[in-house]
Amino acid sequence: MAALRDIGLAAAINVLSAFVFLVAFAILRLQPFNDRVYFPKWYLKGLRSSPPRSGAFVSRFVNLDFKSYVRFLNWMPDALRMSEPELIDHAGLDSAVYLRIYLLGLKIFVPITFLAWAILMPVNWTNNTLKLAKVTYSYIDKLSISNIPPGSNRFWAHTLMAYVFTFWACYVLLKEYGAVASMRLHFLASEKRRPDQFSVLVRNVPPDPDESVGELVEHFFLVNHPDHYLVHQVVYNANKLARLVEEWERKHNWLDYYQIKYSRNQSKRPVMKTGFLGLWGQKVDAIDFQTSEIERLAKEIVAERKMITNNPKSIMPAAFVSFKTRWGAAVCAQTQQSRDPTLWLTEWAPEPCDVYWKNLAIPYVSLTIRRRIIAVAFLFLTFFFMIPITFVQSIANIEGIEKVAPFLRPIIKIKFTESFIQGFLPGIILKLFLIFLPTILMMMSKVEGFISISSLERRSAARYYLFNLVNVFLGSIITGTALEQLKSFIHQSASDIPKTIGVAIPMKATFFITYIMVDGWVGIAGEILRLKPLIIFHLKNFFLVKTEKDREEAMDPGSLSFNTSEPQIQFYFLLGLVYAVVTPFLLPFIIIFFGLAYVVFRHQIINVYNQQYESGAAFWPDVHGRIIAALVISQLLLTGLLSTKEAAQSTPFLIVLPVLTIWFHLFCKGCYEPAFIRYPLQEAMMKDTLERAKEPNLNLKGYLEHAYLHPLFKKSESYDEDDEVNEKWEQESVLVPSKRSSRRNTPLPSKISGSSSPSPSLPEVVQEDPES
Amino acid sequence: MAALRDIGLAAAINVLSAFVFLVAFAILRLQPFNDRVYFPKWYLKGLRSSPPRSGAFVSRFVNLDFKSYVRFLNWMPDALRMSEPELIDHAGLDSAVYLRIYLLGLKIFVPITFLAWAILMPVNWTNNTLKLAKVTYSYIDKLSISNIPPGSNRFWAHTLMAYVFTFWACYVLLKEYGAVASMRLHFLASEKRRPDQFSVLVRNVPPDPDESVGELVEHFFLVNHPDHYLVHQVVYNANKLARLVEEWERKHNWLDYYQIKYSRNQSKRPVMKTGFLGLWGQKVDAIDFQTSEIERLAKEIVAERKMITNNPKSIMPAAFVSFKTRWGAAVCAQTQQSRDPTLWLTEWAPEPCDVYWKNLAIPYVSLTIRRRIIAVAFLFLTFFFMIPITFVQSIANIEGIEKVAPFLRPIIKIKFTESFIQGFLPGIILKLFLIFLPTILMMMSKVEGFISISSLERRSAARYYLFNLVNVFLGSIITGTALEQLKSFIHQSASDIPKTIGVAIPMKATFFITYIMVDGWVGIAGEILRLKPLIIFHLKNFFLVKTEKDREEAMDPGSLSFNTSEPQIQFYFLLGLVYAVVTPFLLPFIIIFFGLAYVVFRHQIINVYNQQYESGAAFWPDVHGRIIAALVISQLLLTGLLSTKEAAQSTPFLIVLPVLTIWFHLFCKGCYEPAFIRYPLQEAMMKDTLERAKEPNLNLKGYLEHAYLHPLFKKSESYDEDDEVNEKWEQESVLVPSKRSSRRNTPLPSKISGSSSPSPSLPEVVQEDPES
Repeated sequence: MAALRDIGLAAAINVLSAFVFLVAFAILRLQPFNDRVYFPKWYLKGLRSSPPRSGAFVSRFVNLDFKSYVRFLNWMPDALRMSEPELIDHAGLDSAVYLRIYLLGLKIFVPITFLAWAILMPVNWTNNTLKLAKVTYSYIDKLSISNIPPGSNRFWAHTLMAYVFTFWACYVLLKEYGAVASMRLHFLASEKRRPDQFSVLVRNVPPDPDESVGELVEHFFLVNHPDHYLVHQVVYNANKLARLVEEWERKHNWLDYYQIKYSRNQSKRPVMKTGFLGLWGQKVDAIDFQTSEIERLAKEIVAERKMITNNPKSIMPAAFVSFKTRWGAAVCAQTQQSRDPTLWLTEWAPEPCDVYWKNLAIPYVSLTIRRRIIAVAFLFLTFFFMIPITFVQSIANIEGIEKVAPFLRPIIKIKFTESFIQGFLPGIILKLFLIFLPTILMMMSKVEGFISISSLERRSAARYYLFNLVNVFLGSIITGTALEQLKSFIHQSASDIPKTIGVAIPMKATFFITYIMVDGWVGIAGEILRLKPLIIFHLKNFFLVKTEKDREEAMDPGSLSFNTSEPQIQFYFLLGLVYAVVTPFLLPFIIIFFGLAYVVFRHQIINVYNQQYESGAAFWPDVHGRIIAALVISQLLLTGLLSTKEAAQSTPFLIVLPVLTIWFHLFCKGCYEPAFIRYPLQEAMMKDTLERAKEPNLNLKGYLEHAYLHPLFKKSESYDEDDEVNEKWEQESVLVPSKRSSRRNTPLPSKISGSSSPSPSLPEVVQEDPES
Repeated sequence: MAALRDIGLAAAINVLSAFVFLVAFAILRLQPFNDRVYFPKWYLKGLRSSPPRSGAFVSRFVNLDFKSYVRFLNWMPDALRMSEPELIDHAGLDSAVYLRIYLLGLKIFVPITFLAWAILMPVNWTNNTLKLAKVTYSYIDKLSISNIPPGSNRFWAHTLMAYVFTFWACYVLLKEYGAVASMRLHFLASEKRRPDQFSVLVRNVPPDPDESVGELVEHFFLVNHPDHYLVHQVVYNANKLARLVEEWERKHNWLDYYQIKYSRNQSKRPVMKTGFLGLWGQKVDAIDFQTSEIERLAKEIVAERKMITNNPKSIMPAAFVSFKTRWGAAVCAQTQQSRDPTLWLTEWAPEPCDVYWKNLAIPYVSLTIRRRIIAVAFLFLTFFFMIPITFVQSIANIEGIEKVAPFLRPIIKIKFTESFIQGFLPGIILKLFLIFLPTILMMMSKVEGFISISSLERRSAARYYLFNLVNVFLGSIITGTALEQLKSFIHQSASDIPKTIGVAIPMKATFFITYIMVDGWVGIAGEILRLKPLIIFHLKNFFLVKTEKDREEAMDPGSLSFNTSEPQIQFYFLLGLVYAVVTPFLLPFIIIFFGLAYVVFRHQIINVYNQQYESGAAFWPDVHGRIIAALVISQLLLTGLLSTKEAAQSTPFLIVLPVLTIWFHLFCKGCYEPAFIRYPLQEAMMKDTLERAKEPNLNLKGYLEHAYLHPLFKKSESYDEDDEVNEKWEQESVLVPSKRSSRRNTPLPSKISGSSSPSPSLPEVVQEDPES
């Protein structure tokens, strides 16, 4: 068992790393040439167009005002200064509510920590069990429940505290759920007009030999919603087009790169190889080759676009249907349309920039099968991913390394190295493995066919949490592969499982303290440094950027990745709740994590992140549910632990707790969840009435007609003025920034034409830049 | 273990009893004076007003046509002759679909029985395990899976058959679900106009100091459903009134009784005692006393009615809201109205005669608590009800009786008594206990606050099934109280539970065969005899009936009690599926049950039962779900049994089966369940359009205005013409037969006035009989 010394060293290393990151950030952020990395949000909002300081030439790149370095933690109060309503206005409700999760952690754990340290620590400390047992133990163990002799009456204190902590957590959760629900409703009510308020996505339109999907949809809704139907847009399968455009963009980047290279060194035309990754193949003039490739692709793109619009086979049996009123849309989204419940399925349309267009082309019938397959795949991932981790971890301890590499013995035997290996390495190994996981999980969600980015992220988050629970939490506690766990669980009775895990919990406190420091503290400090975007921005800036506009595109503000950071927070909730009674020593580490993360993410949300979508805090029921799950798990494990401690009188009282907690959850669900999944008619009617009074002559049809056009079809006139495609979509809908355009800030076709003189001339494609 | 001899005797007794019942029925039903007991449906339908044969005076009471006795099973083909569409027309969809459950049993089990007897029986028979083991065994055991030696390859046959049976059952279930769903949709589409199609029940109307509930409801729906809202009716708390009316009716019956007594024997005025149950107290003249009591109650009723209508406190925060179109009602029922999801809750209104008025007065907030309390109460009932049963059963075996009453030994030792005790008694004891259960469960559902009789019955059925599963099925197999079972289950691992039960299953086959004969065969034969209604009718006929109308009221057709008979069927599904592979010998007993029950219930539905409500087969998802549950249970138990038989190669294949079955269930749920819980807008719109074309000048408001009036307020003018109450409800709504009136066929107030001359004169109440 690792001693307090190891913890001390790990803490020192981690605090130092975190400090280094923070200082690096403080220095880097003050350099004007990094301004677009650390303050992109202000550029995107149009509130800043160049770094603030621009005196001498040098100070345009390097900050020479040394006074500003002294106040290097200045950003912290700055980050906290903005009030919540301002924050909602500035960054959206999703971000504001996301921050509340960290605050919720503080609200729950600060009082719990005080109580646990004030009551449980003395109760634990004033025993001699560990001393009498003559086992090696650290001060952390002496402060934990392990130090209480079996059958002691002192366990009543722990039982009582379990109740107090549960009630406190539930109270805070209830308040928070209510607050978030009312924030959401207020936000939705005060929101400005958005196309998704009026629109519904209808899927599984039945095939009809006589009518096209468009006609079918129109007739169906004219008949069944005669007073409310306004307009519809069919969904095209534009996945091939998207691939072509992506390739076009890649080639264009290469062209830019070669052109800049050439302009810097005019003596030699750049050459390239045409083979795989440019490693072999014929040598050609790079600029000419890329130009011709782009030309070919541009032609293909135009052809493919024509094909899509003319070929009825590329129309999916789905459509975005818009209504005259929000009331009509709310009604259509919440009701069943057809007598066959698998046809004419309606659901709220996601915000246009939240739509994950690729998945709209998935036939609805295959969705069930896809979900089943992914469920099985996830099961396999969860149960077999652990094997390599456990293998590496088993090597990465003193004995393991000695066995595998006996020649390293002299190095290992040094006190410092030993502490390092025991206190630091297991956490790092685990973390390295976990870095690749979110991508895999996100891919899984995409295969499942969710049609909005927000739901993709929510699904991935749920999976990530489950994965963490099984592999990191249980896997670290009972140290065995998930498969082995499963095997032993099946052969144990239901009441023995919490016992097995409960007994192991106090012993793993040190490991999790290290984990919190590595993953939580250093991870968060690394988050604010934005090392990857920093490097990529400067690379792009050097190789690709020609105009100010290109520089804007090179900027990658990123966004809150809900699918990775929310499960991370949840894991700390779980650790905190599980160890609150068992080893209260762990709690301050969690509080520091929550505090630091809150400040860091508040800063990032204000200055950096640019959310792709706004779901109106639709993720809160998930957050709430997972904290409740953590509570129940902690209660079950405590029951299991105490039942092995012969605390027979107090254990039965603990069995009531999970029941009460689940009851509380159902109560909250009944009270608040509908606010997150349904849209009350009263609200819809109120907004409709208000709007009708304010803007009686609003041309809603014009507003909605092209709101749900595939982003690749937008700004189509820049390809070809007399294109058939344009005859269909004459009006340009600039009201709604599409996902792509909001990310790149200049939509694709304008780039085709907008890139200045050195770009190849494509007479049939390039006409003029509508934005220039 | 009971031998084949015991089974034979039990079968003989049971077949004889059933035969006696059937013969008795055949004789009794042909007697004209029993006509109203055995053919009430035809009277209620108005197709018959007096017994068919009415020649000589004697033959008005006794059937003297002896030829008709010869064909005493004549009713069976008669019952089968009516086609299903006719049946739906005659008795409603609920009854027709209910019959399909029995048919479903036949469809599933007839092929399974053939296969099991053709394949499994020879496989089991041609072994010598039991003979070699030198245990006592019967032929039934020799035909069961017990006769296969451990580790034998013959278990592959059982595994294969488990697959075949599962696939066959699922196939039949799927077809049936589809058929019932389309029958339901067709039924709803072709149904004539009914108030519930236009109405929605809104509950939890928030209190408002300035407006009454009625005003509030009207304003809310005028604002939020401006184009569709038509009219509403508030809900009164009339429970006190209902109690008064009930008492009034009871007293009136007594009055009738004494009057008839007096008219038969004019020499002596009947006297009665005023005390408890007429056992003690002051002696008074019975007719005078009852008359004055009735007078007093009538006054109280009028006063209470006035009070209810004038006192705003007796108005519940709930209302039936009716819409101009079915579309509007469908929209309102399926959507959320208010931003607070616990206010303005809307749901489909039940049919007026399906409403359980008493529960409408329960405040909505208390419902959650009531449900929790009942859940706990049901748990206790399930786990402690078994104690007395097991106690009695443990006495009721040979050794038990010998021990308790040694003096009975000579009697017990007689072969016949021994067989009787072993083969017959346990079943009867169990059955006796179970007779009281449905009433208790129904009371529980009522306390829970369901507001329609159909949902009350469905809920009770679900509870009854669970109870049967835990106490009858598991309780008989592992013979221990449910509490003991629970204790042992908790201490066993999840995979051991199916083993424990699985091993015991083959040994209990004889017991369940007896149970099927007692509960199934004799029970069903008893059902057709209608002994209780027969006796009550003749008692009433003798003591209370004065006019032809009274005779009509004395008739009690009863109805299909879904809450008791459906769980009974389900229990046979469970037995059949569990024993199909283990002891196929049991299957024919189940087939006989299904066949007999089908014919009997078809006869009863055609000739006797008068359904109170029509839910459009809304119970089918429950039926389907419970059969699936039985399938999964049978698969798990078979897996458990085989895993103890060292059939290691074939067991893993069985684990896949429950997964597949649950998957199948989810598929069915997705495809068909919405047809049972939601009302598609397309259907609503179609019916609306058709109706508008057919009857453009329909006065829908007049039709709906009083549809959801509490039945006690209907026909109110018979109390007092210038009553304030009547000013409010001027028009008499005779379109909708209320629950009470459909049952009694003459509503209460008409009885107050309608009873002829000897009834007391109540000048301020009795005016005239609107029906006479």
